[in-house]
Amino acid sequence: MDLADDYGRKRVIIKNVKPEIDSGKFPIKRVVGEKVVVEADIFTDGHDALSCLLLYRKNDQRNWMQAAMTFLGNDRWRGEFTVTQLTTYWYSVQAWVNNFKSWSHGLSKKVEAGQDVAVDLLIGADLMEEGSKRGSGSEANKLKQAAALLRSNSEPIEDRIELALDAEYAEMMASYPDKDSATTYEKELQVVLDREKARFSTWYEMFPRSCAAEPGQHGTFKDCEARLPYVADMGFDVLYLPPIHPIGQTHRKGKNNNPAAGSDDPGSPWAIGSEHGGHKDTHPELGTLKEFRQLMTAAQKYGLEIAVDIAFQCSPDHPYVKEYPRWFRWRPDDTVQYAENPPKKYEDIYPFDFETERWQELWAELKDVLFFWIDQGVRIFRVDNPHTKPFRFWAWVIAEVKRKYPEVIFLAEAFTRPKVMYELAKMGFTQSYTYFAWRNTKWELTQYFTELYQSDVREYFRANLWPNTPDILTEYLQMGGRPAFMARLVLAATLGANYGIYGPAFELCENRPREFGSEEYLDSEKYQIRHWELNRPYSLKDFIARVNNIRRQHPALQSDWNLCFHQVDNEKLIAYSKNTEDLSDIIIVVVNLDPHHRHSGWLELDLEALGLLPQQSYQMHDLLGDAHFLWYGSKNYVELDPQVVPAHIFRLRRRVRTERDFDYFM
Amino acid sequence: MDLADDYGRKRVIIKNVKPEIDSGKFPIKRVVGEKVVVEADIFTDGHDALSCLLLYRKNDQRNWMQAAMTFLGNDRWRGEFTVTQLTTYWYSVQAWVNNFKSWSHGLSKKVEAGQDVAVDLLIGADLMEEGSKRGSGSEANKLKQAAALLRSNSEPIEDRIELALDAEYAEMMASYPDKDSATTYEKELQVVLDREKARFSTWYEMFPRSCAAEPGQHGTFKDCEARLPYVADMGFDVLYLPPIHPIGQTHRKGKNNNPAAGSDDPGSPWAIGSEHGGHKDTHPELGTLKEFRQLMTAAQKYGLEIAVDIAFQCSPDHPYVKEYPRWFRWRPDDTVQYAENPPKKYEDIYPFDFETERWQELWAELKDVLFFWIDQGVRIFRVDNPHTKPFRFWAWVIAEVKRKYPEVIFLAEAFTRPKVMYELAKMGFTQSYTYFAWRNTKWELTQYFTELYQSDVREYFRANLWPNTPDILTEYLQMGGRPAFMARLVLAATLGANYGIYGPAFELCENRPREFGSEEYLDSEKYQIRHWELNRPYSLKDFIARVNNIRRQHPALQSDWNLCFHQVDNEKLIAYSKNTEDLSDIIIVVVNLDPHHRHSGWLELDLEALGLLPQQSYQMHDLLGDAHFLWYGSKNYVELDPQVVPAHIFRLRRRVRTERDFDYFM
Repeated sequence: MDLADDYGRKRVIIKNVKPEIDSGKFPIKRVVGEKVVVEADIFTDGHDALSCLLLYRKNDQRNWMQAAMTFLGNDRWRGEFTVTQLTTYWYSVQAWVNNFKSWSHGLSKKVEAGQDVAVDLLIGADLMEEGSKRGSGSEANKLKQAAALLRSNSEPIEDRIELALDAEYAEMMASYPDKDSATTYEKELQVVLDREKARFSTWYEMFPRSCAAEPGQHGTFKDCEARLPYVADMGFDVLYLPPIHPIGQTHRKGKNNNPAAGSDDPGSPWAIGSEHGGHKDTHPELGTLKEFRQLMTAAQKYGLEIAVDIAFQCSPDHPYVKEYPRWFRWRPDDTVQYAENPPKKYEDIYPFDFETERWQELWAELKDVLFFWIDQGVRIFRVDNPHTKPFRFWAWVIAEVKRKYPEVIFLAEAFTRPKVMYELAKMGFTQSYTYFAWRNTKWELTQYFTELYQSDVREYFRANLWPNTPDILTEYLQMGGRPAFMARLVLAATLGANYGIYGPAFELCENRPREFGSEEYLDSEKYQIRHWELNRPYSLKDFIARVNNIRRQHPALQSDWNLCFHQVDNEKLIAYSKNTEDLSDIIIVVVNLDPHHRHSGWLELDLEALGLLPQQSYQMHDLLGDAHFLWYGSKNYVELDPQVVPAHIFRLRRRVRTERDFDYFM
Repeated sequence: MDLADDYGRKRVIIKNVKPEIDSGKFPIKRVVGEKVVVEADIFTDGHDALSCLLLYRKNDQRNWMQAAMTFLGNDRWRGEFTVTQLTTYWYSVQAWVNNFKSWSHGLSKKVEAGQDVAVDLLIGADLMEEGSKRGSGSEANKLKQAAALLRSNSEPIEDRIELALDAEYAEMMASYPDKDSATTYEKELQVVLDREKARFSTWYEMFPRSCAAEPGQHGTFKDCEARLPYVADMGFDVLYLPPIHPIGQTHRKGKNNNPAAGSDDPGSPWAIGSEHGGHKDTHPELGTLKEFRQLMTAAQKYGLEIAVDIAFQCSPDHPYVKEYPRWFRWRPDDTVQYAENPPKKYEDIYPFDFETERWQELWAELKDVLFFWIDQGVRIFRVDNPHTKPFRFWAWVIAEVKRKYPEVIFLAEAFTRPKVMYELAKMGFTQSYTYFAWRNTKWELTQYFTELYQSDVREYFRANLWPNTPDILTEYLQMGGRPAFMARLVLAATLGANYGIYGPAFELCENRPREFGSEEYLDSEKYQIRHWELNRPYSLKDFIARVNNIRRQHPALQSDWNLCFHQVDNEKLIAYSKNTEDLSDIIIVVVNLDPHHRHSGWLELDLEALGLLPQQSYQMHDLLGDAHFLWYGSKNYVELDPQVVPAHIFRLRRRVRTERDFDYFM
């Protein structure tokens, strides 16, 4: 153990710093404008007073900025800072024994007890004189003069005591601290910044090839352009397209995943690569790269950003297979190992062999694919099955991209074990798919969202909630009909600041599975072109538009951290609130989780969490039905008929007019 | 990011390793013969099979030993090893993708599904051949031959499949793993070993100066020798003496902490140092160093080990004050700063100034004090107020001692805030005082011991429970009379594998406080000599002897990790069990916490935790009263009268005789 220098005099212990992910190995995430609240256990031996600072800086700054930390009790301290630029930030904690503060506390107590403090004043004089040496200008002079006065026997003792305990001098001493023996926390912790859409985004997934105006036609980028107003009118701001690359022929899958494709079957867009090219090319029937760029430009006008799909796998016809055979695993019969999960086979897909000796070359090319699309203007990637590629690859490639383009958003489509999903988020994914689709009961939803939003998970894992995807038509949607779609839409859109739907299947309440017990869609767009009749009267498009409009109007719904569940005495009714930190916007959502029956119950709001007094009236404005209710106290009655609307989205207004607002009230 | 070498091919993630204290900054503690159970989250991308090893080694070994880890579900793995020597151990975790295991799983599934596996057998042949190259001797040959057979088309496919899935070959492959891309956890974690007494010890504190045979005399080391049989008969194995050094005269405290001592007042033993010497000397009235060593030798014969008090502070008369004035803080009036906690003053005590520039010199001398007593044969130190000296000092000095004398035990007497107490334990203290003295209700006891024994705290903090000390006569003892002393004795002795009492005050049920509302003893031995009449009929010495005998007989009570609380439907009755891991020894304790009234209730045992079937009879043998009860099922009746004995200490015997044991039963 090193006994040199000032080792033995650093008496302060700093530990249990939060947030800190895996001992500081991974950054926390924030969007521009958010706060970072840091807590730490800080203490020293004995009874001396401490001063504690939160240190923070931007990546390119050498010097720390500092924020005061305040004492919370039980040796815990808290400070905060706001991140304002799209760059990396660092933070740490510093603390030291504050002898002036200790002395000042002791002096007060001795004065109170009527003890002789003559010597104590001399000690204070010494401390102030030392302080003056660390200071400068008029303050330093003032401290020096004060020290002299404290020492002067000709001054009345009462005056000297008053001077010694003067807040102004305490403040001056605080600005020139004696940090000789300060302890700085041994780690610098990182904050990765994202743009605001990382926290608040509304996604719509759609197959371009199903967008043709005429049934039976293969949709094109041009057709997608025509579909933009439809999507924008529903209030979405991200339009995500499944892979737009050439599709392989070998072992192409037919309708409903038939192992033998018919001659007119278009194949799965995830079987990427053909004689027309690979990951840097567009499918000829969709259009040219130029037309894709035109689509992006057009989308922008509607407030829509195009997200593309990154699926790092190949069809047997992908040019890579011939050009870079060493990137694949070869079998003893001189064929390439196709994807399999025995006994299931996916012969239309060749996975990359990430254990190849040529992994550096492979990584470089995959990175190049990302930069290719970034060069086309893409800034959002939805990454297919990231959990089947090495974690280290993602850590590297995302860091490479974000170093140059910090605005790029990566959504991880990993439906796998929880620890693997969380680990991917730590590797740098901006948003992540979740288990939301399979969380249907009040208990399940409460448990899951408490884990996602109230634990450390929220520091690095940003949930993006999808009630359906082309792979997932849940039993709840299959069996619950239109009310089930409405309920799940409201849950996704209000539990998740980020959410998305796969349409038009969703708004048209498409709920036929390929077979009983399957979550696959019948006649899935993954294997065939569908023509959707968008103006069916039962379409939820207006309902979705209304919900998305509420999201846009209400900042409370644009963040997840303030989610709070409230009690309802009926298991089928779930209630929760979201609010802005200043409580200026409070949204209360109540959903009937049973799509078949009307349910009612007594909702018990946590009034304190909402800043309400127990005896106060308040107004509940149902933004979905536009009805107004006057509520009083914590318990109020709710009733929801799924055949009408299975949810309330209330805005809570604290201010209710009383006689005092009446003009002639005196 | 480094893309060189095998970086990209290490696909396995190892994290959330337990036990790991503060990111591995501090060791865990074990005594010789105990197990270290290690768990970790281990996973990789995709669906490949993993092999996971727990690595461990002694400090002086270069190579890791290894233990298999088994899968617990949810990506969690567990392994264990036993520590067998009084030295430092290290452990870590290693894991790799096991291609042979993945292949073998896949093959089974394909065979089950009736798929063609011809190519798969060739892949297996390649894997086995590679395995044979890593292996040696006959096993390597066998693998090579197996590879050839798998490739041989002349062999029937069924035989080849059988061979491929043969467990013997799987085992051989497991012994020659392909660890090229293995991930080793980035930290090596430490285990500090202690001797068994660190885990199981029974302490008796006694003032030597109160041991004289005649009232009014100053007791000596010789008198202590005469007292040894008395202490040993009660079943203690550590005899702890408050400081035995010369006591200062200046500002000496009189009886009952009177600021002015009378001429015959002996002073506080914690005011160390006089003209007769300091921390390396004995108080002349107690005897010589030689006589102290004789006492230690005599104690040994009675199975008692002497623990001495380490109080790093000085009386104003300590030789250090003149010899090393820079070790103290000087006030502007050229006096030394005495101890204070404004407005309280302790003018008979000069604390060391650990902020002195001479701190290296000071640390070296304090270390020397420890080694001085070690040289006299002392191996147990009870350290007074360690929380008023820097944490780093303790980390250093304890490491210095244990490097040479790993058998030394340090007990931390820190009654301060919880985080400070835990931090001191991390610095290396072997055992620690606790809040036990102030935990009286069922809820308090359950909460506190769950925190101490069921959380990570137990990995580094070994509780030592004291119902009283010379500083602490709790209100519970003051008000509850003899039954309170009995109840607290049973709680301390059965909740804590380590416990101690301050006697003879304890066994004589001394319960008069200095004044109402104070926890100080009236006529405290801290300031005066007491003469105790040890044979008073109400003495608890026989009761204590019986309880300590039960502790010695029952390994269940010699460890704290298996504590389990059980429900009783009466708030005044607390019930808990301790058992050996193999359940061969099970002790159930029931205590009436109300010293004033008889209480009864229904005790509901957690039968599963105790290895009992719900419908089974079992025998409860009350080791205190020697009564036997036949119990059945989980709920049984208990009743305790504090005026008789306020506790049961049951031994549970699972085996109850039935008709099947009757000689003529057929």
